[in-house]
Amino acid sequence: MKIDMAIEKVRPHLTESRFQHSLRVAETAVKLAGLYNVSPAKAEIAAVFHDYAKYRPLEEMKHWIVKSTLPKDLLLYHHELWHGPVGALLIQAEHGIADREIQEAIQYHTTGRANMSMLDKIIYLSDYIEPGRNFPGVDEVREMAGKDLTKACWMASRNTIDHLMRKQGTIYPDSFYAYNDLTNKLNGGT
Amino acid sequence: MKIDMAIEKVRPHLTESRFQHSLRVAETAVKLAGLYNVSPAKAEIAAVFHDYAKYRPLEEMKHWIVKSTLPKDLLLYHHELWHGPVGALLIQAEHGIADREIQEAIQYHTTGRANMSMLDKIIYLSDYIEPGRNFPGVDEVREMAGKDLTKACWMASRNTIDHLMRKQGTIYPDSFYAYNDLTNKLNGGT
Repeated sequence: MKIDMAIEKVRPHLTESRFQHSLRVAETAVKLAGLYNVSPAKAEIAAVFHDYAKYRPLEEMKHWIVKSTLPKDLLLYHHELWHGPVGALLIQAEHGIADREIQEAIQYHTTGRANMSMLDKIIYLSDYIEPGRNFPGVDEVREMAGKDLTKACWMASRNTIDHLMRKQGTIYPDSFYAYNDLTNKLNGGT
Repeated sequence: MKIDMAIEKVRPHLTESRFQHSLRVAETAVKLAGLYNVSPAKAEIAAVFHDYAKYRPLEEMKHWIVKSTLPKDLLLYHHELWHGPVGALLIQAEHGIADREIQEAIQYHTTGRANMSMLDKIIYLSDYIEPGRNFPGVDEVREMAGKDLTKACWMASRNTIDHLMRKQGTIYPDSFYAYNDLTNKLNGGT
């Protein structure tokens, strides 16, 4: 799918500010893709669509989780976690995007996972550091993103878990699998 | 087993400072047991033995993990996590302590787990707050221990994960399961 068409497919599903966020994630993802030798075209499509399901009714998202092969434990965690996995299904069902790498990058963009692909990392990180983001610690992660993609993802993962714990929130298992896996990679393990 | 005999069984296996720590954990555990209607005798035995395997050679601990039904993924995490699960086996093998509640409280004293028993919580927390402990945040947890056992365990769990993340350390899955489960309980969920 051409990027102009992708943008027009996504626009009606998002609020204006969420749409602008998605464009900034795409801009960031294209830059990181260039730095880390990943297809900028794939990164751009994945980024534009990453929040595609964000405003679907909860009942519709729940239906997709129940009826698909998505992990059912999603239903035991905050519904903020549902739009990534459901979006990965909807872009295929509604727009025929069958590329597994793109689908997975969208599926895991909120939590990360163990053994993230390069595209997973780029979308996860771009969502965290796009120029509209402004929270404690984001500049440090932005700076690291240009130097070490894995370390930058590790910082984002650690900050996210820390943020959730401060709010007395639960942590979806994939979030800590991502954290442990990135930690092992930084520490020279497997 | 009588407590005086337990103390004499444990003493030769620990350094003097670790032995004194174990006695302080026992003293704290007995107090908490009284507050929360748990058998003080069980709490005392579990506390005295909680670090029983602490100074076993790594190879011996590894052997017990490999040969028993203990989860093998322990071997992929820091060996500091091994002495609890191995201790739970050794107290039965070497001293005939077959009480499952005591064994489990020792097994999970470092990480916690989902659905901790009252005795699990008392040993986990006593190890964290015994009067010799002195680190940022411990007084807050000590104060909470007298008021709300689950909330105090939640605080200890959150602080421990936070501490590990600051050190760029991995987090054993049971630690996260404990955190999520305690969070759900505080938030009025299951």
